[in-house]
Order: sequence, then C-alpha cells, then structure tokens
Amino acid sequence: MSAQGAELEAALQEAIESVARQGDIVRSLKADAKDGKADKAAVDAAIEALKQLKVVQEQKQKAYEKATGKSGVQSRESFRANVVNALERKLFVIPSFKIYGSVAGFYDYGPPGCAIKSNVTQAWRQHFVLEEGMLEVECPAVTPEIVLKASGHVERFTDFMVTDVKTGDCHRADHLLEAALEAVFEGRTTPPAGEEERRAARDLHARVGELGVAELGAALTRYGVAAPETGNELSTPFPFNLMFKTSIGPKGDLTGYLRPETAQGIFVNFKDLLYYNGNKLPFAAAQIGNSYRNEISPRSGLLRVREFTQAEIEHFCHPEDKRHPKFGSVASLAPLLYSRALQMGEEKRALPMPLGEAVAGGVIANETLAYFIGRTHLFCERIGLDPARVRFRQHLRHEMAHYAEDCWDCEVHCSHGWIECAGLADRSAYDLRAHTAMSKVELSAYETFAEAREVDTLTVLPNKKALGQAFKGEAKAVTAALEALCEEGALAVKAALEAGGPATLEAGGKTYSLPPGSVDIRKERKRLTGRSFTPAVIEPSFGIGRLLYCLFEHSFYWRAGSDKRSVFRFSPLAAPVKATVFPLLARAELNATAARVSAALTRAGLANAVDTTGNTIGKRYARTDELGVPFAVTVDYTSLEDGTATLRERDSTAQVRVPLDELPALLRELTDLRRTWADVAAQYPAQAAPAEEE
Amino acid sequence: MSAQGAELEAALQEAIESVARQGDIVRSLKADAKDGKADKAAVDAAIEALKQLKVVQEQKQKAYEKATGKSGVQSRESFRANVVNALERKLFVIPSFKIYGSVAGFYDYGPPGCAIKSNVTQAWRQHFVLEEGMLEVECPAVTPEIVLKASGHVERFTDFMVTDVKTGDCHRADHLLEAALEAVFEGRTTPPAGEEERRAARDLHARVGELGVAELGAALTRYGVAAPETGNELSTPFPFNLMFKTSIGPKGDLTGYLRPETAQGIFVNFKDLLYYNGNKLPFAAAQIGNSYRNEISPRSGLLRVREFTQAEIEHFCHPEDKRHPKFGSVASLAPLLYSRALQMGEEKRALPMPLGEAVAGGVIANETLAYFIGRTHLFCERIGLDPARVRFRQHLRHEMAHYAEDCWDCEVHCSHGWIECAGLADRSAYDLRAHTAMSKVELSAYETFAEAREVDTLTVLPNKKALGQAFKGEAKAVTAALEALCEEGALAVKAALEAGGPATLEAGGKTYSLPPGSVDIRKERKRLTGRSFTPAVIEPSFGIGRLLYCLFEHSFYWRAGSDKRSVFRFSPLAAPVKATVFPLLARAELNATAARVSAALTRAGLANAVDTTGNTIGKRYARTDELGVPFAVTVDYTSLEDGTATLRERDSTAQVRVPLDELPALLRELTDLRRTWADVAAQYPAQAAPAEEE
Repeated sequence: MSAQGAELEAALQEAIESVARQGDIVRSLKADAKDGKADKAAVDAAIEALKQLKVVQEQKQKAYEKATGKSGVQSRESFRANVVNALERKLFVIPSFKIYGSVAGFYDYGPPGCAIKSNVTQAWRQHFVLEEGMLEVECPAVTPEIVLKASGHVERFTDFMVTDVKTGDCHRADHLLEAALEAVFEGRTTPPAGEEERRAARDLHARVGELGVAELGAALTRYGVAAPETGNELSTPFPFNLMFKTSIGPKGDLTGYLRPETAQGIFVNFKDLLYYNGNKLPFAAAQIGNSYRNEISPRSGLLRVREFTQAEIEHFCHPEDKRHPKFGSVASLAPLLYSRALQMGEEKRALPMPLGEAVAGGVIANETLAYFIGRTHLFCERIGLDPARVRFRQHLRHEMAHYAEDCWDCEVHCSHGWIECAGLADRSAYDLRAHTAMSKVELSAYETFAEAREVDTLTVLPNKKALGQAFKGEAKAVTAALEALCEEGALAVKAALEAGGPATLEAGGKTYSLPPGSVDIRKERKRLTGRSFTPAVIEPSFGIGRLLYCLFEHSFYWRAGSDKRSVFRFSPLAAPVKATVFPLLARAELNATAARVSAALTRAGLANAVDTTGNTIGKRYARTDELGVPFAVTVDYTSLEDGTATLRERDSTAQVRVPLDELPALLRELTDLRRTWADVAAQYPAQAAPAEEE
Repeated sequence: MSAQGAELEAALQEAIESVARQGDIVRSLKADAKDGKADKAAVDAAIEALKQLKVVQEQKQKAYEKATGKSGVQSRESFRANVVNALERKLFVIPSFKIYGSVAGFYDYGPPGCAIKSNVTQAWRQHFVLEEGMLEVECPAVTPEIVLKASGHVERFTDFMVTDVKTGDCHRADHLLEAALEAVFEGRTTPPAGEEERRAARDLHARVGELGVAELGAALTRYGVAAPETGNELSTPFPFNLMFKTSIGPKGDLTGYLRPETAQGIFVNFKDLLYYNGNKLPFAAAQIGNSYRNEISPRSGLLRVREFTQAEIEHFCHPEDKRHPKFGSVASLAPLLYSRALQMGEEKRALPMPLGEAVAGGVIANETLAYFIGRTHLFCERIGLDPARVRFRQHLRHEMAHYAEDCWDCEVHCSHGWIECAGLADRSAYDLRAHTAMSKVELSAYETFAEAREVDTLTVLPNKKALGQAFKGEAKAVTAALEALCEEGALAVKAALEAGGPATLEAGGKTYSLPPGSVDIRKERKRLTGRSFTPAVIEPSFGIGRLLYCLFEHSFYWRAGSDKRSVFRFSPLAAPVKATVFPLLARAELNATAARVSAALTRAGLANAVDTTGNTIGKRYARTDELGVPFAVTVDYTSLEDGTATLRERDSTAQVRVPLDELPALLRELTDLRRTWADVAAQYPAQAAPAEEE
C-alpha cells in the first residue's frame, strides 16, 4: 500500500471507530431515557453528534476509495482481533503464566514466535554488528543503584499515577486525561462541547506528555475525570518510578534495579571498549538483551509489556566530526521522513526524501544519524515490514531532552496507529559525562592535533607562605578558591594586585582581601599537541517485540477465495519454519524419502517440519499457511524414480520441480535472501498444482 | 590428555596446593614464635606435617610422570590466573560495573566473549532444538510468586547462612565448615589432628551438603569455626532464600521473583505445547534464557555468578515407556561414566562405557536419559571441550530428590576440579503434578489403549434424602466424605451396612454413624478405552557460562618457543572471530584487496577483522592468537596478479594458497565443521611461512 493510502486508511479507521463509540453512547442514553434516567434533549444531542460523525466517515471513505481503488476497510479492532487470534492459536505468543490467570504485561513466545524472534535478532546482529564491525557486549539486567542514579533513571524514570481513592486501583494520569479530552473533541460528552471547547481539548491533548504534575492535576480536575469502571474520585497525580526494584546480596543493604534499558551497560564499559578498538574513534558498541519497565497499567497487548528485548547501539564519535565513512552507501535512499517542518505544516504527512539531500538541507542534523536512519530503513525492509508503513518522525524541540542534538523515531503503522519501534538520537556527550561525574573515572578520548596549537593559558600560583600568614586556618579554603577561579575572575584579581591594591576573593560564602604578593597570576603561551575530550554518542535503539508485532500485522492476510484461511506472508529470512515436507500419500516409502529430505534440510540449519498426517494436500497447506511457512516440498512416486520433488511458494502458490539434492542449498539461498523466487521459477520447470489443493 | 592423566594431574595439583598452604602456616608460625606468640612445639608439629605432605606430593608427581611422560605440572592457581588474565585483557569477560567498583557475582561479556557465547548458544539450538525437533519457548524472568510456590522454590530454594555477630557479614555455613574440615584432614591444624580425627573430618566433609540446619550448627561449634578474616563469633545457621525478590505492578501487592531456572516456564505451558504437538507424546520443549540466584558470597569467579544463561530441555514421555526412537544413533558411543558403583568402589574413577551396554545393564535408568547423555557428550565435543575431561557422574541415592528416578551430572574438569556444567535428570511426574495441584488445571495427557480394558470400579452413591434427615446441616460434609472414600474405606462401609449397619465415618475430625440405606456402594465392571495420565519428564539442563569457562581453560596454551604468547585453540565453530585478513605490507592497493576479502566474508556471515596496523606479521599473528582466531588470510602482491591469498591455520601454523573467490565458501565449511583443515591442506598447494613470523 502507498504511504498516502496507509494514512487515509488510518484516518478512515479513526472515523469508523468514532462512529462506533458514539453509537454505543446513543444506545445507552436511549435505554437510560426509557428508565427515566436521561432526558430527551440529551438523546437528541447525542444523535445529532452521531450524524455529524457519520458525515465525516463518509468523506474519509470517499477519499480512501479515490486514492486506493479499494471499496472499504476492515475496522482496526476486528483486524487486530483476527491477527491476535491467529497468533495465540498457533502459539506465536502466549499470555505468560496462563494456568495461574496470567499477569498483565507479560507474554511468552511459543515455538513459532520464538523461532521468528531468533531469526529477526540474528538478522539484526548480521545487519548491524557484523556488517558494521560493532563491538557487541552483554551485561547483567540486575544493576546496582549508583549506575541508574548517574543515568538519571532513579530520579526521573517515572510516569504520573493516580489512584482510585476507594479501591486503591492505579491508573496512568496521562491516559485518563487523554481519554477524557478525546470524548470532548469527538463530541461524545453530554451535552456535546462547543467549537471552542473542542479546540481547547484538542490542543491540550497534543501536549499531555509535556504537562508537569501540577498542570496535570489541574486538568484532571477541570475535566472532572473520575476512576474508570468505578467512577470514584481520584487522588492527585504523583510520580511513580517504573523500575523493578530488588536487593543484591544477603545483607539487604545494596539496592538494585532491573535495567530499564541496555544502554548503560555500554556506557560504563566505554574506557575498555575504546582501548579494545585501539583507542580510535569513531566506533560503535551494541547490546541485545532484556529490559524491564514496571508499567502502571499495561494496555495495548503486545506493544506495552513489562519485560522486553532491546537491541541498542551506541556510536561514539568526535563531537565536532559526525561524518560517517559509509554515508555514501545510503545517501540516495529515500525513506519516509516526517520532519519537524512537515509536522508543523498543513498536510501533516511524511514524505520520501533522499538522505543525502536531508543532511545537505539540514533536515537531519548529521551524516551519522542519517546513516543509521538509512540502515534502519533497510533493516525494516529486510525483515519484511511494508516500507510504505515505516516512517521516521523527528522529535519536536520540546520533546527532546536539553542535551539532545536531534532525535528521530522509526514509527511503524499498525492497527494501534503509528508506533515507535526504534529511536535514533544524537545524545551529545551527556551519558559519558554523567558517568564520569558519578564514578570519578574519566570517560574520555584523546586526540592528537594534526598540527600542534599555541594556546594562551592563565597560570595561578598561590604563594602558600603569604596566604598562611594572612589567613591562618582559612588559608586552605582561600588557596582552593584561587585555583578554581575562572579566567575572568583570575584576570580581575591579577588587575587588582597589579594596581597595588588588595584584591577581593569569594570563598565559601565569605569575602577575603588578598594582599599583594599572595598570588602570582601569569599569562603563558603553551604548545599543545593534543587534548582529551568527551565523545558524543549517537544511539539507535530498537524494540524487538514491537518490530515483531508490526511484522505480524503487516504479514497477515486471508487467502483469496477462502473465507477462513489465514496466512502470514513472512519473508523466508524471518519465517519460523522455512519449509514443510509432505509425502503426497501416507506410504512408508514416501515417508522415508520425506524424512531424508527433512534431515538434509536440518543439517543445512533450515527449520522444517514433516507432515505425515495423511490429510488432504489442501488441509496441509492451510496448516503451513497459518505458520507462514514460505515453501513446501512434496515428495511423490516420481521422486522415487528421478530424485526430484515439487517445490511450492506460499503466496503465488506456484510450483517447480527441483532435484532433491539441490534442495538444501537452494532453500538456504532463498532463506538468506541471496536468491528470489522469481529467479528459481525461471530456472526450474514449472509444475501444475494438484486439483485437490483448494 | 587421557582421562587417567587428567585425574592424576588433578591429584598432583591438590598435593601441590596442600604443600603450599602448609608452607604458609609454617612461615606464619615461625614469625609468631619469634614474637613469642607461638611455641616451638607448634612450629615443629607444623614442619613435620609439611614433610609428610611433601612425601605425598612426590608420590603423586611420580605417578603423573609415569602415566603421562610429562615432567611436571603448573599449579592450578597459576594456570587459572593466566587464563583469567588473558580473558580480561582481551575483554572476553569484564567484571560488571567496573568503574563503580564492581559487584560480586556479575560479569559482562565483552566483544569476543559475546561472540563465542552467541556461537555456542546457536550451536546448542542447532544440535538440540533443530536436530531433535524440539518446541522452543521464551518466557519472562520476572515470575509471580504462585508459580514458584508450586515448584517449591519459595519454600526450599535456600542455602544455610551464618553471620559474623559483630560485623553482620554473611557467609555460607557449608563453605566455612568444609574449609575447617579440610584444615583438619590435611593436617593444617595446630597441633595436627590424629589419624582418627582426620578420618572423621574426611567423612563429614563428604556429607556436608546433606546436613540439616541443626547438624550443621553443631558441627560448626564442634570444630570451633569462626568468621573468616575477623575471627569473630558466628550466628547459628539459618536458611536464606536465593531468589531475587521484587514487586509487580504499582500497588505493591503482587510479589514476584527473578526465576532461579527457566524450566518452570515450560511446565506452565505444558497443555498448550502438547496440543501444538498434535496431542502426541513424547515431545521435548526447550528454553534458552537468563536465570538468577542471589548467592550469599559468590566465589569461584566465573563459575558462581548471580545472573547466568541456562539452556534447558523438558522431554515429556509416558511414565511406562521411556524408550527413545533415536537411541540406536548413540548406543555405541562410550562417554566416561562415573556410576554410583564406581563412586562407591575402590578406584573412584570414571570409565568409558557404551551407552547401549549401560542401559542394558541397568547402569542408566532408561533409553531417553541415556540418549541425552550421548547427545550432551557429542555437544561438548562439538564446541571443543576435551572429551577426556568430560564425565557423567551419577547422583548417589541420597543426593536425589525423593521423586527423581535417576540423575547424572555432566562434569567438566578444570582448575576448580570437576565442575557440574549440565544436569540430566529423570524427574518422574513431579513438576506437572505440582502445577496441577496449585493451579487446578489438569496437566495431563490422554492415551487410548491398544485394546479396551475391563476394570473393576467401586461406585459410591450417597442417598441425599436419607443423609439430610440423619445429619441435617452436616449432611453436606458427610456426603463429601463419602465421595472422597478410598477403596478400602468404601468397602468397610459397604460391609458394615450389609451386616445390618450402622457404619462409622470420619469427616472433619468428627465421627458419624451412618444408618442403613444412607448410601449405595456397588462394585461395577467397566470397559475403558483409554485414560488420562501425568507424563514423566526427563530434564537436561545446561549452564552456558560454565561450559564457556571450561572451554576457555581447555583451549588455553602457550605457543611453543615463545614464553609469553598465549593462544586459545577454539574450534572454528566456537571462535569469536573466524579469520583475520592481513595486507602483507601497509600499501593502499593491498589494503583495498583486504577490504574486499573482508566484505565477502562478512556477507557469508563470517565474523572477521582486518589488521592494517603495519606491524610485523609475527606481532599481528600474536594478536589473533590471543583471540583464538583459527584462520588468517594474507593478501600480498601475488594476490593482485593471480587472485590468490595465503590461508594459515592457527595451531599447526601451516599455510596454503587459496583463490580469493573460494575463500568465503571454504571458511564457511570449516566454521560449520563440515570440512577439516587436513582436508583443505590436501587440496590446496602448501606455502612456506615467511621468515619474519616468529
């Protein structure tokens, strides 16, 4: 689907949902009116709002049809329900601890989910770690408090929470406010809000993430937000730290947390990694591992979970040189960019733009950040995401931390809307400086200047004897204050003393009067051949589970001509099972050949399954479709004679005849995406599908 | 080295260490005597003990020389220090959070460690999951309390701890007792213990793991054990739970733990997995993931850590049929088995025994357990462990849990002695029964009998009306008690009533008198076509970190003729980097060709490094030796002419000349162990090493 098509579809789905929600309200008001609990005016107002929403839906429908030629769209909810049903039925995912009633925010990967996750993770390792020569590390999830104090997580890794004053149930304050604001600007309040009120609600909705605790509390009160389900009063909001807390060792005196991200493990190892890299910049380190966030009330199913796999990269470079040696290889790629300008503009949609142009025009801050945007774009394509539904959204100025230079989220479109699946941020030297300050270990690099530089320096030499006589017990504090003087301060002292005066000096809140001769301050010209500096870091950070979920949605379809036959169109690279091997009939001699083919595929590292159930071929294909198996090998009596078998591709259902001994290498090449099906179809003789298939 | 050689070496190392320790004691006593703090008698006794230990060492030395032809052995400690030094210098491992002073029991894997771990884990997945068609799952580490209550971990996953009464420092009670007992039977106490005392200490030493809390406390008192370092008094021992505790969700009312093993995630999913497998037994599920144990005082460096990667298999089968369809493929393998009989016997050493023979002779309880012993043996060999230093030790009866049928540890010999790296246990139906009882969800399988069976059953039909009249409000309790009667109890009631009754019945601690006619108890013959049963589970469980550490030790050696050039002889499969690419000289045209070779290797998924430092070839080889890189490709001016390069094998330092375009496929085959170096050396022309190498 085109990018525009995807956006129009999203808009249409939103309109359909608004109509559905308003329909519910009308029905419930009508029932209330019957019982005398609501008046006719309220019902009429709600019906009027419903009519307006239907007009909007019709407009969106027309725009969508015109752009895509399609007649309609399934509602997001029903599409999502179908996908999740297919995922849970075939054990791609399983709510964790199901026999004990499950715990929100935890999911298991069952056999096919586990396999696809392993494939995508290995693809990530090949695409980033191997091809970029990154230094991969693996650090523990259990992390002592001091590390996360340095990173700021102990103080600031919080969401605002409100509690139901009667039941004690916990809710995210921002989520409740957002829902209340949506009801206002979608006209679902009784009576519906006026034009101005709606605009105010819409404006506030866009800024909910930025509100401080007091503003948030005031807004909740203003919009009369109560606890969902119970309708009880809510507490005022307060920050809740999202880290899981534990205690390390038996004494109980060492607080630990489960890491909320894998990045910190790389930062604390920076010195060793730089040394390992021959003390040369730039270099990148990477880590794949689990991170933990104790979400207040996890919703959105697989998208917001409490334990999840991250793949993070920290690319260290010179703060004044963010060029990338391989930038040329991605400069002509044109991913969908949703820049700040486009977000603030009229159309509000992402547009394709060559990365070379984006850097030259200052849209993306530097080559390295753009390089990783390009590599991420290629990775998404490689694992099988629909490139038209992958965009890079730049953070607005107020979304970024004060130290960040530029940030872009890789957003993938799915039934939940545009979802952040990776974040790419130029974090300047913030992280290394924070750990240097806390650990007192200098996390810096050294550069030798191309040519030695002459630099003016100011040397401050306190006269300890004179100071001791003048200030006795306070001499030490005065000396320290002198040594800590900034250039301006030192020059002022120098001037005062040269004018013959005493000079004044602040130290520890007191003012001292320095007699002449108590300090020697000199300007000197020095020759410097190099210097230490704190490298900048550019951080691409991926959420593997979110990528997988979007991949599931992008891959799901119904087989044409069959109402209830779902298929996942996984790329051979990602597919959990690469091939199913069928004996055409349930006969011992065919089973034996099938077993030999399967063993040969296994030796080539290709996950495969033999189906000897003796079901019809059509039924057996349906089972492999549900798992998204890209290829099927059918062994028949001809196989026993000439040593060939039928190879069928899942989406086209096209079939060719291939020699058995060529199968492992052929499927290996298809799986590694070194060969396409079109190529295979051109090389081997085609074979008609058996009549019984459908 | 032969198995016997390894054991003699271990015995010799122990003797060397005893001498070294006693030497320290003598020196410290002599110093004390000088200061008047020890008397001459004590010094003389200690010297006498030292003499005896030296005699023992000499005997062990002779036995070792005779068996191996080698002249001596490095002490374990110095060997280990060399290995750990090489590991930390090249960032195979890094103590975690080093810039903050580290935390005991946590290690990072740096770049080469991470790569080798990923290779070994992928090899495990290929060897077990793919080749055995196992169902892999991935479950969260954060686990709600109820799951671990069911498994018994909340109650029983403890070590006994003692604290220093003054400092509060924590120690493992068993470790302190063991150290004290070793001092006694090695004659390091003052005065040295008599023969009988030594024997008693040695006997107790063998049983420390089995002592209850009271016995352990009594033994600590008897041997006068004090806190190490401080010499302070110790508390009585008490159980300390080794699980990291946390809280799930914001309310703080849901206790969670970090899982101490991955196995429970498989058990709770048993029903879904059985269904996924078409409701057929046997099948196996597997999980690779991190587990957590909050050790009291982690010692033994990399062997006892608080966060570690496990790879666990749960093989579910019929409790009365533990045959394995592929057992024939391992029946003639003869791994070193250290059976109960051999452990109780005179020689106390493991012997090779064909697995077929071991099962037939009842040494190993069943085919499935023996099959996994065979597969584990093959896996150890495949990743590069020395098979002579891998043995399977059977648990003694008292070591096994009451429900276990048979258990074997895969022990690998290293400088810490024989270390458990995998455990293989027939756990009967224990785990599934425990989760069935706690969750009330039936975790069972169904079997259809080959032929329907006629079974006698006893039907108990309470007469509700009669019971209501007789017992009023208590009728419900009486009815329940009747329905819960065991066969024997029901027959007794039946007999009493048939004899004209009343019959007595216990319910809720009270005795009731049942009048005739209040219950009908009948013997019936029923035709059963099948039944539900709880499958048995056979569990092979691997500690990936321990396997890696032993692999590091088994792979470490010093290059002959070079004092300080350490090498890791990693197999090409495990090696973190498969090849280094060298331009012979630092020239642009050679660098460009080297870069092209490197890119081609990367595309083939082969981790490689280019070294353009321009150091001497010898120096460059030394760097690759330290990382255990198995192959080196050197590009020279001939390469530019005829498109060939030199390929060198690490351990033999033999070189051949290979066409550049054949290199990726050739190295891929070598890495996958589908081809040997001998084979390659036979195919390609040999080339003499350049003079500058050494």
